[in-house]
Formats: sequence, C-alpha cells, structure tokens
Amino acid sequence: MTYSRTVELEGHIIDSGTMQQCFAAIMELGGTFEVEQFDVGTRKDETSYCRMVVTAEEEPTLQSIIHELHQNGAMLTNPRDATLEAAPADQVVPPGFYSTTNHPTAVRYNGEWLEVERVEMDCAIVVDPGGEEGTAEPRAYTKVLNAIEEDDLVVVGETGIRVRPPERPRDASGPFGFMQGGVSAERPSESTIREVAEEIEATHESGGNVLVVVGPAVIHAGAGEDLARLVRAGFVDALSAGNGFATHDIERNLYGTSLGVDVDTLEHPRKGHKHHIYTISEVIRHGGIAEAVEAGVITDGVMYECVENDVPYVLAGSIRDDGPLPDTITDAVEAQDAIREQAHEADLVLMLSTLLHSVAVGNCLPSTTKTVCVDINPATVTQLLDRGSSQAIGMVTDIGTFVPTLAEFLIEETP
Amino acid sequence: MTYSRTVELEGHIIDSGTMQQCFAAIMELGGTFEVEQFDVGTRKDETSYCRMVVTAEEEPTLQSIIHELHQNGAMLTNPRDATLEAAPADQVVPPGFYSTTNHPTAVRYNGEWLEVERVEMDCAIVVDPGGEEGTAEPRAYTKVLNAIEEDDLVVVGETGIRVRPPERPRDASGPFGFMQGGVSAERPSESTIREVAEEIEATHESGGNVLVVVGPAVIHAGAGEDLARLVRAGFVDALSAGNGFATHDIERNLYGTSLGVDVDTLEHPRKGHKHHIYTISEVIRHGGIAEAVEAGVITDGVMYECVENDVPYVLAGSIRDDGPLPDTITDAVEAQDAIREQAHEADLVLMLSTLLHSVAVGNCLPSTTKTVCVDINPATVTQLLDRGSSQAIGMVTDIGTFVPTLAEFLIEETP
Amino acid sequence: MTYSRTVELEGHIIDSGTMQQCFAAIMELGGTFEVEQFDVGTRKDETSYCRMVVTAEEEPTLQSIIHELHQNGAMLTNPRDATLEAAPADQVVPPGFYSTTNHPTAVRYNGEWLEVERVEMDCAIVVDPGGEEGTAEPRAYTKVLNAIEEDDLVVVGETGIRVRPPERPRDASGPFGFMQGGVSAERPSESTIREVAEEIEATHESGGNVLVVVGPAVIHAGAGEDLARLVRAGFVDALSAGNGFATHDIERNLYGTSLGVDVDTLEHPRKGHKHHIYTISEVIRHGGIAEAVEAGVITDGVMYECVENDVPYVLAGSIRDDGPLPDTITDAVEAQDAIREQAHEADLVLMLSTLLHSVAVGNCLPSTTKTVCVDINPATVTQLLDRGSSQAIGMVTDIGTFVPTLAEFLIEETP
Amino acid sequence: MTYSRTVELEGHIIDSGTMQQCFAAIMELGGTFEVEQFDVGTRKDETSYCRMVVTAEEEPTLQSIIHELHQNGAMLTNPRDATLEAAPADQVVPPGFYSTTNHPTAVRYNGEWLEVERVEMDCAIVVDPGGEEGTAEPRAYTKVLNAIEEDDLVVVGETGIRVRPPERPRDASGPFGFMQGGVSAERPSESTIREVAEEIEATHESGGNVLVVVGPAVIHAGAGEDLARLVRAGFVDALSAGNGFATHDIERNLYGTSLGVDVDTLEHPRKGHKHHIYTISEVIRHGGIAEAVEAGVITDGVMYECVENDVPYVLAGSIRDDGPLPDTITDAVEAQDAIREQAHEADLVLMLSTLLHSVAVGNCLPSTTKTVCVDINPATVTQLLDRGSSQAIGMVTDIGTFVPTLAEFLIEETP
Repeated sequence: MTYSRTVELEGHIIDSGTMQQCFAAIMELGGTFEVEQFDVGTRKDETSYCRMVVTAEEEPTLQSIIHELHQNGAMLTNPRDATLEAAPADQVVPPGFYSTTNHPTAVRYNGEWLEVERVEMDCAIVVDPGGEEGTAEPRAYTKVLNAIEEDDLVVVGETGIRVRPPERPRDASGPFGFMQGGVSAERPSESTIREVAEEIEATHESGGNVLVVVGPAVIHAGAGEDLARLVRAGFVDALSAGNGFATHDIERNLYGTSLGVDVDTLEHPRKGHKHHIYTISEVIRHGGIAEAVEAGVITDGVMYECVENDVPYVLAGSIRDDGPLPDTITDAVEAQDAIREQAHEADLVLMLSTLLHSVAVGNCLPSTTKTVCVDINPATVTQLLDRGSSQAIGMVTDIGTFVPTLAEFLIEETP
Repeated sequence: MTYSRTVELEGHIIDSGTMQQCFAAIMELGGTFEVEQFDVGTRKDETSYCRMVVTAEEEPTLQSIIHELHQNGAMLTNPRDATLEAAPADQVVPPGFYSTTNHPTAVRYNGEWLEVERVEMDCAIVVDPGGEEGTAEPRAYTKVLNAIEEDDLVVVGETGIRVRPPERPRDASGPFGFMQGGVSAERPSESTIREVAEEIEATHESGGNVLVVVGPAVIHAGAGEDLARLVRAGFVDALSAGNGFATHDIERNLYGTSLGVDVDTLEHPRKGHKHHIYTISEVIRHGGIAEAVEAGVITDGVMYECVENDVPYVLAGSIRDDGPLPDTITDAVEAQDAIREQAHEADLVLMLSTLLHSVAVGNCLPSTTKTVCVDINPATVTQLLDRGSSQAIGMVTDIGTFVPTLAEFLIEETP
Repeated sequence: MTYSRTVELEGHIIDSGTMQQCFAAIMELGGTFEVEQFDVGTRKDETSYCRMVVTAEEEPTLQSIIHELHQNGAMLTNPRDATLEAAPADQVVPPGFYSTTNHPTAVRYNGEWLEVERVEMDCAIVVDPGGEEGTAEPRAYTKVLNAIEEDDLVVVGETGIRVRPPERPRDASGPFGFMQGGVSAERPSESTIREVAEEIEATHESGGNVLVVVGPAVIHAGAGEDLARLVRAGFVDALSAGNGFATHDIERNLYGTSLGVDVDTLEHPRKGHKHHIYTISEVIRHGGIAEAVEAGVITDGVMYECVENDVPYVLAGSIRDDGPLPDTITDAVEAQDAIREQAHEADLVLMLSTLLHSVAVGNCLPSTTKTVCVDINPATVTQLLDRGSSQAIGMVTDIGTFVPTLAEFLIEETP
Repeated sequence: MTYSRTVELEGHIIDSGTMQQCFAAIMELGGTFEVEQFDVGTRKDETSYCRMVVTAEEEPTLQSIIHELHQNGAMLTNPRDATLEAAPADQVVPPGFYSTTNHPTAVRYNGEWLEVERVEMDCAIVVDPGGEEGTAEPRAYTKVLNAIEEDDLVVVGETGIRVRPPERPRDASGPFGFMQGGVSAERPSESTIREVAEEIEATHESGGNVLVVVGPAVIHAGAGEDLARLVRAGFVDALSAGNGFATHDIERNLYGTSLGVDVDTLEHPRKGHKHHIYTISEVIRHGGIAEAVEAGVITDGVMYECVENDVPYVLAGSIRDDGPLPDTITDAVEAQDAIREQAHEADLVLMLSTLLHSVAVGNCLPSTTKTVCVDINPATVTQLLDRGSSQAIGMVTDIGTFVPTLAEFLIEETP
C-alpha cells in the first residue's frame, strides 16, 4: 500500500534552486517521485513547469514531504480548503496548528486564496470569516501564540496553504544583488558601504520606511554623532533599541563619555563609570527622554534628534539594564508588540551592532524586507541568518568607521 | 591655595597592587602626594602601612582623588559620617548620590561603621536608622534605582564610605588560584575543567550554593543530558536561564531534537524547525513546566530534574523569545529582582554559554562571589569581565564537551 | 552577429545543483540559452540529460561561459583536442595556460581523454606525449608554476578539458553525510566527534591513509598525550606540522610545560618561557628528533611516537619559528613539495588547530579527499573553505577536549 | 642551611608595578625576603629605593628567584661578571645559555657593563672581547641559535646580566598613552585612528623609520589604493609582507580584482579566481616586480609605489604561497634575517591584518619599539601580545575603513 499526491511547480524553478530542494526533500524523507511533465524554460525569461506524482509508503511520510514541498512553493493539483479549528482557550492553539514561515503565504478558505496578512515566522494563522451579514470580507492574518484568543479560528495541518519563498534575484546587478554571498569579511569595505548608502537613498527617495536597529556599541565606538546626523537629515524613519543604547547616547551628551571614556579625547576620567548611572537618574528625575529634551537637559545626540524630528523609537527592556529609563518598555511581550509594529512598517532594516535587538526585529520580519546587519563580530551576523532571517545581508566591519563613512556618502555626497 | 587630605592604607598594599593604583590615580587626576610614613612589611606575612597627604589645587579634584583612593581601600584619617539625603520621590535619588561598586563596603553612621548589606554595583545605599524606640539596629543596604522609595535616606557624596576591594590571593595554589590570568584559550582544557570540578565539589561539600546560569547553546551542543545528571546528583542549587533554554531542553525531551537537529543521530528531520513552537504550545496547554512534568508530558531533561529535585529556577524573558512559556518572567524588572535573589545566595556561579544572562547575573554579584564563565566565543567572556565582574574566571571551550567532561569528573570519579 | 556552442550535461544535474549553476553562469555572464532536449530523471535513481545551445554576442563572452560550464561538468558536443604550447623557459608558463581546479579533470589528446594525474588547484597541466618509440603511453599531470621546465607541453585555453565536480552525496546517512552543512558551532559536539571517529575507523580498516595536520595549540590545550596515543595505536599514517608543534611537543616531554605552563598541574613555573628555546637547543645538540629519541632524551609525546612507529612527518618552516629544529624544512617550496606528497597519498585529512598548515595542505588536495577541520576559531574553518577546500567539513570546538574524546572513542571503545 | 642574596631596586618601582612583581615572584617561588631599606619617593617625581635580602632553602630556588628579579630590573648589590662559554659547534649553544628577553639588557664583562646590541627575545648573547691589540672595544650582541658559530663566547647562567623592563609611562597623555589598555574593541574608532595618525606623523617628522607590515586582507578590503597613497606620500619607510600580499596588490592593478572580486564595482567576474595565478605567471615572465614595473606592466598599487619611491620591501615566503613571485624569499631563515634588519631599524611598526608576519616581525622587536597592531579579529591582536610583544597596542577594526581614514588624516589634513 502506498500513498500518492500530485504536485505542480512553476516559475524559475531550476535557477532558483526550487527543483533541487524539492527533489532533495522527497529523497531525504524516504519518498519517491515520478515526473509526469517537465517543461523547461528554454530561454532566460521563460519559466519552467513541473508536474510530478510523489509517493510514500506511509501517510505521515507523504504529509511530511508535501509539507516540505509546500514550503518550497509547490502546489497541490487539487487544492482543498485549509482546516480551521477554534482555539480552546486564550493563548492555547489547537494541536497540530500550522506554524508560519516568514515567506508570503496564502490560505484557501471557501475555495478562495486569502493572502495572509502580517507575515512573520513561528506564528499561528487565524482566519476571520468576515461580517455576520456578509458585508466584511474574510481575512487571514498571523498571531503569535500569546495573542491567541479563545475561539479564534486557527489553521491546523498542511492543507490549503501556499507558501511563496522569494526567488533568488536573477540579476546580480539589481538592488542588493551586490552581496548575495551572505556574510563576508573579505570584501572591499568602502565600496560595500557605498552600496548600502545607495540602497538607503533609494528607499528614502521612494518614500519607503527605514528602520534602524542599534546597540550601545554604536556610541562606544564614537559613531553617535554621525548617527544623529543621519536622523536629523531624515534618513531614519524609526529607531529600535534598548535602554543601554539610549543611556549611553545621553551620557555622551551630558558628560562627553561612553563607558567612562571621553569619546573625543579618549581620556578615561576617573569616576567616569558613574556617568552611566547618573545619566539614568537624571532622566528619571525629569520623567522621560522627551521631558529631559524639553527641559533643555539633553541637547544633542541620537535620542535628542529622534525627539526633535518626531522619529518614533522603541526602547525594549532587558534583564541587564540599569535603571531603566522611564521610556523603556520593560515587559518583553509588550516590547515585542511594539517592535512588531516597527518591523511590519519597515521597507529597509539596518541593524547596527546588536545581536539581541537584531534577532528580536528579525523574528518579526517577512522574508521580503531588505535587511542589512553590520557587526564587527561575524558570529552575530551568522546567528541572525541562522535564525531564519536568511534574506539579511551581513557586513563584518567596525561600526565606528561604518557609520561615519555611511553618513559621508548619504549626507555630503548627496546633491 | 591648595586642598589637602591625609589618607591611610594598610594591608598587602604593595603586592596586591593597591599602592601602585593609588599613586597612579593621584597623578592621573592631577594631584600630588607626600608620603609621611611608609612601613613596608619586611616579610611575606607582614602587612605594610602608608600614610600620605594628598594635595590638589581644586577642591573637586581633591574629591575625585579621594573618591578613587576610597575605591582602592584607602581610609581618611579623620573619618566623618556619611551624608544622607531623603529621596524626593519614588525611583528618584537625590543628586550626587553615591553609586556602589561590587566590593564590600561600609558607611559611617552616627560614628559607627555599618556594613552595607546586599552589595552590588551601580546601586544607591540606603540607611535605615533603626526603630523608633531604639530597639532595632541601624542598617545600610543597597537599592537599585527603581526600588527607591520617597523619603529613603540615601547616601550622597563620598564622605564616610569605606570600600575594601578584594586583595589578590597571595597563594597561587589556593582556590581559584589556578586561573588568575583572566581569560585564556591557550590552556590545558581537561586540567582546567578538573579544577572547576574540584571547586564545585568543595563548594558543594561545605554546604555552599552553586548557581548555574545557562543558555540554549548547552542544549544545541548536546550537553543537556549531562547537565540534567548534574542537577539530579545535587551539584546544582539554583538555575538561572531564559525562555529559550527551557524550551530547547523540553523540545529535546519531547522530540529528541534541538533547533530541529536530532541530538543523538545528528539527523536533521524536515519539519524539525516546528518542534520548537510546538513545544511551547504544549507547555502552555498544561499551564506550566511543573504541571507538564506532573502530567507525565515532560519526562527527562534539565527542567524535569529541576522540578523533580526541587531546584529553584528563574526563567527571565527577553524580546527574542517565542511564546513565552508560562514560567517565564516577562517583565525585566521583576526578572532582575528574581535573579538578584539567586545571585545574593550563590557562593559559586557557573555561567555556561549565555552572554545576556551572564551579564544580568554578574551585575548583581558582589566581587567576592566565585564566578566561572565558559563560552566558545572569547568575546562573551571578555565582555563579562569588562562589565565589572572582574573576579570572573573565563574559559574558552566547547560547552558540548565541557559539560560531559565536568559531569564525568564530578559524578563518576567522586567516591 | 552572435556566437554559439552546444553543450551537454548528464547526471543528477538537478538535485546536485549543476543545472542551477549553469543557468546562473550563462545569465550572469550575459549569454542566452536554448534548451534543445531535457530528459528529467523521473525517479530517484535516474539521471537527467540536458542539451542546450549557448549563445553570446562576443566570442570572448562565449568562451567565458563555456569555461564556467566546463567547471560545472558540462561537455561540448563536439570536443576537440586540448591546445598545447611549450613552456618558453623554466618556471614560465605560456600565456593563457589553463589553471586547474581541484576537481577530477581530463584533457583530450589525440582524440583520447587522458585523466589528469595528481589533481590540485592553481596548477598548469602538462602533457607527456609518451615514449619516442611509442612504448610509453601519453600522460597528463599537474605541475605547480615553479616546477615548470622549459619545453614542457602546457595546456592553454579551455578547449579539450573536462572537469567533474563531485556530486553532492544523495544519501545524507552515508559517509560524511552527517555534516553537509559546512561549518557550524551549534551542533551536538560529542555526537559529531563520534561520527569523525567512525570515519577514521572506517578509513583505517580499509587500509586508507589518514593524514593529521596539527598546530601547536594541540599541545597547549593539553591534548598531546592523547594524540600520541592515537599515533601509537596506528590511527595516524602521516603527520604534517611545523617547527612550533614539534618544539612544544618535545618541551612537554622534557619539561612538562607548554608555553611555560605545566600541562597537568596548571602551575606556571617562572623561567618556563625559557623551556621552549632550551628544547630547541637540546635537539640541535643531538642533530635531530630521531637522534634525540635514540639518545634517550625524548621519551614520549607525539614526535616520539612518530619516530618509534615509523610514522612519516613533515615539519614545514615558517618565519615565526624559533631555532629551527634540524628536522624543519626551511625552504617554503621544498616544504610544499613534501606536503604535496603527503596530501596526494591521503584518503582522510584531519586538520587540528592550525590555519597556516591547513591551508597549505588544503591547497594540494583534490576535491575528492575527505577533510575534517577542527578549530575553536570559526574564522579558521571558514577561511579554509573559502580558499577552495569546499569539501572540508568544519567543526568549531575545543581541541583540548576534542582529541581526548576522539581517542576515547577510537581506542577504548574499539573491540 | 639557607641561601641568601641582597638585591637593590631603584626607580618608580611602586607605580610601575616592579615591587609588586618582585614580591610576587619571591613568594611564588617559595622564597622569603627581608626589606633592609625602603625609601619611598614621597613626591610624584621622586624615585623609590629598596634593598632587601632574598632567602631560599635551596641554591637553585634562590637562582630562580634572582633570575626573576633580574628580569624585573633588580640588581645584585655585588655584581659579578657574566659567565662566558665557547660554543662547541656551529648552531650549538652551551647548555644553560642565557636566553634573552626583548628588554634593554647589559652584561658585565671585565667589570664593565656592556649594553647588549640588537636586543631581541629568545636569543643567545655573544660577547666579542675586542681586538687583539686592545684597539677595538669589547661588544655584546644577540645571536639567534642558528647563527651561532663555533667558539662564539656565549653568556651562560644568570650572573652579570641586567635587564631594564620599560617603566609604564607615568603620563597618560604622552605618546601612546592613549591606549594603555592593550586591546579593546569598545573604543571610539575615529578618535583612535587619529591618535595613530599623529604618532606616525610625529615619527615621520622626527626622521624616524615607519615599518608597515601588511597582509593580503588589506587588498581584499579595498584599502590598497590608500596604502599606496601613504607610500607615495612618504609615510612608509619599509614594507614587510608576503607573496600573497604582493600578488593580490598586483592582481588589483592588472585585473581590478582581489580574490576575483572587482574592488570598485563589487562585481564577481567569473574566471576571476584565475587572475591570481595569472598575475604570478606574468611577474615571473618579467623576472620580478621591479622588472615588471619597468616594463610598464605594473602601473599602480602598493608594490608599484614601493619600487618607484625606493621603499625597501621584504616578501617572506610561506607554505601556502602560490608561485611564488621571484621577489619572495622562500627560505624561512633567510627571510627572518631580512625581517630582522627591518625590525631593528624601525621606530614605529604598523601591523595591518596579518598574524603570521606580525608575529614574525614582533619576535625581532625590542620592547622599546612602538607597535600598533590592527585587525578585525581580536584573536590576532591578543595572540601577538601573548607572544611577548606586550608593548604592542591593539586596535580591533576593519582594515578596509582604517586605512582610508588614516590616509585622510595623514595626507589631506596635513598642511
């Protein structure tokens, strides 16, 4: 007794590697295939088409295979509706719920394909059947586990779901084509920074949203002033950081030091290690960053420019925070929700020297959002890519020279 | 016009480097000194004594110098009481409050030296004058900024404070003498692990408290089972981790995988990347880890052994968490408080492959608590030491072989 | 005016990624293709076949494309003989000479395909037409540039060359299937070491040649004794190292120290830093390592076991050497030749904690030799793979626990 | 029965840490001390003086202690002449020969202190008694082991030797005071580069010799053009590199690529990986780099500017070299001799992204030569410092932005 299913693939399925991955998945999982039709795109701009019957000796094996093929963009020839099951309680998903990838996804409901809204990995998909009188359209969207409410209609199983992983760009000279190799330290640094600048410029000019995710190392490395210039010049549409970044940025403004080191003279004033905690108490005294800006206490820096230029920021709390500042969202779930909003609005994400915040933002991004991750530690970049943000482009460089060079390209060389 | 003050130092002030640091501090800050008396310990076991007059041209400079000398253990010849000021509001410290180091500290109150309780860096010191009817004794203790309450009597300035930085152990063969060099990758690994084992053994036998701080890499590296054995054998008195560690540990139990890789066979089952989120939803369904253990769902692993052996654990939340598990403390301030309790009770802290949690625990530790930090990434160990936990001993090794080797030394070779 | 050529591909060209790479190469280089025939292997064990016409607007572009397709295993439908040109002088290759990959390669000579001997990357191919009286067969083999002699018949251009890059193993459970993912630090360490042990065991039992490439860190990390056991037990057929490794190994025997640290007690004897140079002068005094073993001066360790068990070793010199020992080959070209011999005889290469020697050996290996590279620094492993040894499997772990664990698996658990 | 010796120390022995190290050495080695006289410098600019009797129960222990105190600058109260012994054969030192540190050293000969010439670590000291007729003065100089000739008078034992380790600069604002902390990634990058630029500028203006040690990563990172500008502008007095650096630099000139990547456009031309080997064969064809420059083949780049501006360079061979270029010194001993000459002439050494060459040069440097080591990998910098070049200042940054920024500071901002 064997179990079979017919699947179809269409698109640049050879040169994007899709066929290779599908064949590999079938064989690794112990299935077999018989290709019924294979029309290769005979020219550069033609797509290919493949229809094959996949067979396995056990029903669960077949399902695993079909699941994998799905993830790679295959469609069943006779699609059925997705299976929906009501959540038994708040925060409790039905067993076997479908857990999302970060690729564009659709679910089949009443014979129609609904595009899943707010795509993000490791979520459940909830279907809203629409208004009672039939006026509202049905919708499908992602929900993280802790947002599930009793009776939410959650997609379970693998049926009726279509995933479209992004095809590799065919043209290496297009946007972001320049760094398809993932992470590399052995690349011409200034040329690469110029390409990043051009990408930011292009996003900016087309009205796109640039989200900058930053860690405190940006300040220690002396790049705070240049990042502040970028905010002032309008190249940053949102900022995602932590209590540490904001504190160090404000410390630099109040005392001229970062981690107790004078950012300009490199002198290491004794007592400098107290500046950090004094900064926090000063902001607490005023009630928050905006209040301290208004009171004339904070007079420059990244946070100052965010306040002055109405650039929204999220400061997410962490267990290693001192203080924290009143602006810090200390609850991880609330902070994630705030980060999620930023992530979903972003068209380009620039991650600067922070593993924690980069992974947190990366978790919320669909695979279609352009992402650049910059860190001097290759492990940070690698870890981000391994965690699923495979669209991210990594650059291993010194943030303390990266930001000034980027600012020069974006601000001084822009007409 | 110059300003002067007489200070005294006593102890192994030459061979512990104290004199060197004091002279350096005076000169760097622009002061001068005149040594009035210097009695060098002429033999190995004799302490030295130094009395000198420190002079500066400005009062603030002198204060900065005195502050630094304080931090290195110098005492003023004519100590005065510490200055106390009432906190103007909740979470608001008076300006110029004294921010603590992590060294043993005393404050002078009514002519008496009160030992500061719960020493921890970057805190305020609050003095409780004792009961109204004079029955209760006055006390001094640390408070983090966000725990300050209106009218708390907070120490301000530098007067009346005594800090005793730990002297370097004179005998390199004593406990932890073996690794005084800080971090090093170029050391015999097995011999070093044996020394760590002996230290744990000694702490355990003397009834001390061993706190283990762990990151998820322990599970990915296949060391979960051996860590569970250590918990079962009683070598772990408390566990400090995050949502990720617990989830991966339980995933290994439920599915045999970690990050989707089979921990024993190294096979990479397709669909394995869903195990992670399924594990979380399974625990949520039962209401928590202990409940899932009781229900027979979780049957082995580190968390299982903690539940079964009544080893208390703290799971601190973070913005990169999935789920989270119901046991996770999502508020950073609450989580810090729970970590603080663990840290203050610990006699030996073993930090395994987690930068975030190691720094969070390290922030709460007095400089007298023995700390070992193990990570394959030298940057993690370095960062911890740079953040102030200078007593920490770093070992750069593979956690996946470290824990099994440690378990072998502790369990199999112990009579 | 356009230029065209017909090429054929055959084999598992979809699931090994060959088709994908060929299409990508054509498009990146600005060519077009028209698939004339495409027979997809309809089942798991059937190969596929593709014949296509590749077209470009310039002859050089077409040649570049054909070159790339060649490198990926494509054949021209009407192959011609390779072009040969005599070397104009010693060490001088003709312009446009064919520079080899490390994949199995054949050249067409007099209508016959000659398998290129001693395949190695970045070499010239020399054809020896055979004996004057027609008794000897024609041969083709690689030569490094500095070995070229005047009048050598060197292959130039791209014509008449066939390259067969290794297909990815289809069966993930086969030899070395376990680590196809390249480098990863996030894998169960002990399970991975066990797989390496099994691979060595299998090579050993089938009479294969195991080459171990070692750096001095093996000794510093305390793994010298276990490596010596592996040599004594017969698991090492050849050793490739440098002057530093041998010196540290012998220092450990003579003084018990490595870099001046006692390997067992971890004590750091003063004067220990002189042991290194004393060791060298002691061996020089006896005339060499074998002589010092014979004289009873060297009594255990890796080098001792090599001498006693007739395991051949190469000690290649470097500009950072002290001494050097008399056994060290100080000329880089001579040392490379010695390494080349080792590399060509090896069936399995185990590289332990040395970037310099690993790259040197890797440069001489054909892509068909199994290679495992172990280092605590991910950059070492990455750099090796980036340099062309893409068949190498990387493991990021502590050599000081890796070797003991490997020795335990190989020696104690072997019946 | 005990053994005693009286030693004296003089200088800033407290604030330079000398006293601390001496006391530690005595205690660690099992000796005791009795301080007979201790005159502390009562003011900033006064030196201290200490005379103490050191006692041990065994003569060898006492010798070990005296050896250690020597290394830290202590003098015996009744110095005797150094013991000299003739080398028994070429390259063979007498047993117990004195192995040098890299600190300024003097040996006592005929009652006179001879300053040791060409100080370098891990060498023997040879005394040349001077001319037969008494006209030539006696001299003492270092010799590496392989340069020892039969009958050389070699210093043995510890008697009659005086070592003067450099005192820590007292004034943090002086030259190179800015980075006393050794290696740190968490420092303001641009400010630090500016300080390095000022140091180079100062050395240049005072007629000092700037030696630049470079690895191929400088070219891959796109910094070749800026380094070439620095050579042209006269800021580089000598260059120390390997075959790989020169090849990549010339490849960039001939083909515009480095490792096959176009340095400006970041395009990755297929066939680019052959440029490397073609470059080598091209230079071989012309007979060398200077010849290829003269022939108009090489027209810009670092090597070109060295040839055109008569900046001497050493290209040291290594076992991972392709080719090599005719200019490469393939014998490690000969290459070391050439490097030694460069090292001894240098006043400031700038090491850029090369571990092998940095360690090789570092081995030959006296501890008084200013050294800056720049690498993106902290392990490279750490390893250099651990190997004895403790005067080296490490900067962890991206060479691809460091060199352009340095060039801008040195060339464009210089009046």
